[in-house]
Amino acid sequence: MNIADLQARLRAFAAERRWEPYQTPKNLAMAMVVEAAELVEIFQWKTPQESQALDEATRVHLGEEIADVLLYLLQIADHCQVDVTSAVERKLVMNARKHPPLPREGESA
Amino acid sequence: MNIADLQARLRAFAAERRWEPYQTPKNLAMAMVVEAAELVEIFQWKTPQESQALDEATRVHLGEEIADVLLYLLQIADHCQVDVTSAVERKLVMNARKHPPLPREGESA
Amino acid sequence: MNIADLQARLRAFAAERRWEPYQTPKNLAMAMVVEAAELVEIFQWKTPQESQALDEATRVHLGEEIADVLLYLLQIADHCQVDVTSAVERKLVMNARKHPPLPREGESA
Amino acid sequence: MNIADLQARLRAFAAERRWEPYQTPKNLAMAMVVEAAELVEIFQWKTPQESQALDEATRVHLGEEIADVLLYLLQIADHCQVDVTSAVERKLVMNARKHPPLPREGESA
Repeated sequence: MNIADLQARLRAFAAERRWEPYQTPKNLAMAMVVEAAELVEIFQWKTPQESQALDEATRVHLGEEIADVLLYLLQIADHCQVDVTSAVERKLVMNARKHPPLPREGESA
Repeated sequence: MNIADLQARLRAFAAERRWEPYQTPKNLAMAMVVEAAELVEIFQWKTPQESQALDEATRVHLGEEIADVLLYLLQIADHCQVDVTSAVERKLVMNARKHPPLPREGESA
Repeated sequence: MNIADLQARLRAFAAERRWEPYQTPKNLAMAMVVEAAELVEIFQWKTPQESQALDEATRVHLGEEIADVLLYLLQIADHCQVDVTSAVERKLVMNARKHPPLPREGESA
Repeated sequence: MNIADLQARLRAFAAERRWEPYQTPKNLAMAMVVEAAELVEIFQWKTPQESQALDEATRVHLGEEIADVLLYLLQIADHCQVDVTSAVERKLVMNARKHPPLPREGESA
């Protein structure tokens, strides 16, 4: 996935609809959490097991919600000059420090 | 950004910590919306104008929250066999159909 | 619970801290969803069964998050002149229409 | 608003529809955050000023979303044996300690 290219397309898309005045980071963050909750809605009444065995129609729907959240994330990053790839790499390092791996089974700690 | 590679790293990360039993799509969706709200929290008391002029420390914090949401999205997609890149392309087509571009200024509609 | 009384106390609380300029309905809605997600966080890695058997410390924590969401809801209603009690009664009627009760077992439909 | 009475009505409503198996606190928390985000959606593209001057139709819609969130909160509290009124009073005390009031203007600090 080419993030810079996607961000450029999203900027052009917004410009062609004269949406720029609405696309403040504050508003984009609100739109993003609304889409995040629509993704949650797919799973709200499912058991954990059912959530692991979605039918095809639900997987298509899920893909749409994943895309919606992702596209808003990329727009927030674009408008706030956050480099998504570096942010992800930095976060993976932080997560690894915060949660050290467990010793393998049979290994002493 | 190489999505398949990131998803493989996240799977290995979870396995090394024996987190697999917790990582149902239902639980990952809950964790994702929690991170989405942490991103919203950055902007909650800011004016739209302030949200467009973040200081460096806030931009670093924002990058962490963007990464958190994104990493959960990728894990949800991985566990549910959703192809993120195709889902994004399909969604962009849907959005273009739903919201036709406005005529350019000076052009007749 | 006396809603009007609580709303008056919350208004006075905000005034004594000069928070009024921040308390637009838009901002209060953002703060509300942030607290809603903190409530979700309590349950994110629990099984449905575990969520039904919280220990005392978690119940106290849950009470704090419930109160946080509720207090923001009451402030949004107050600032937007929404009568909470009427809104709740109206919603209960709407829900009953939308979801008719099932026939009792042994009864013909 | 009589909370215990509302909670009893919500329990009966769920029983008449045989929804009890779905109404774990985990699931109710997910449903609650979904409704919280629907409330956020009302404000997402509005300016702070516009959010302070809703038209009548929007206020009715807002009332429905407030009620939806509130009713799920009351069900979570009911299923987890959290006393909402005590939780609110406790939280107000915590908030007052955390955020001391500012000195009145003209008063020395």
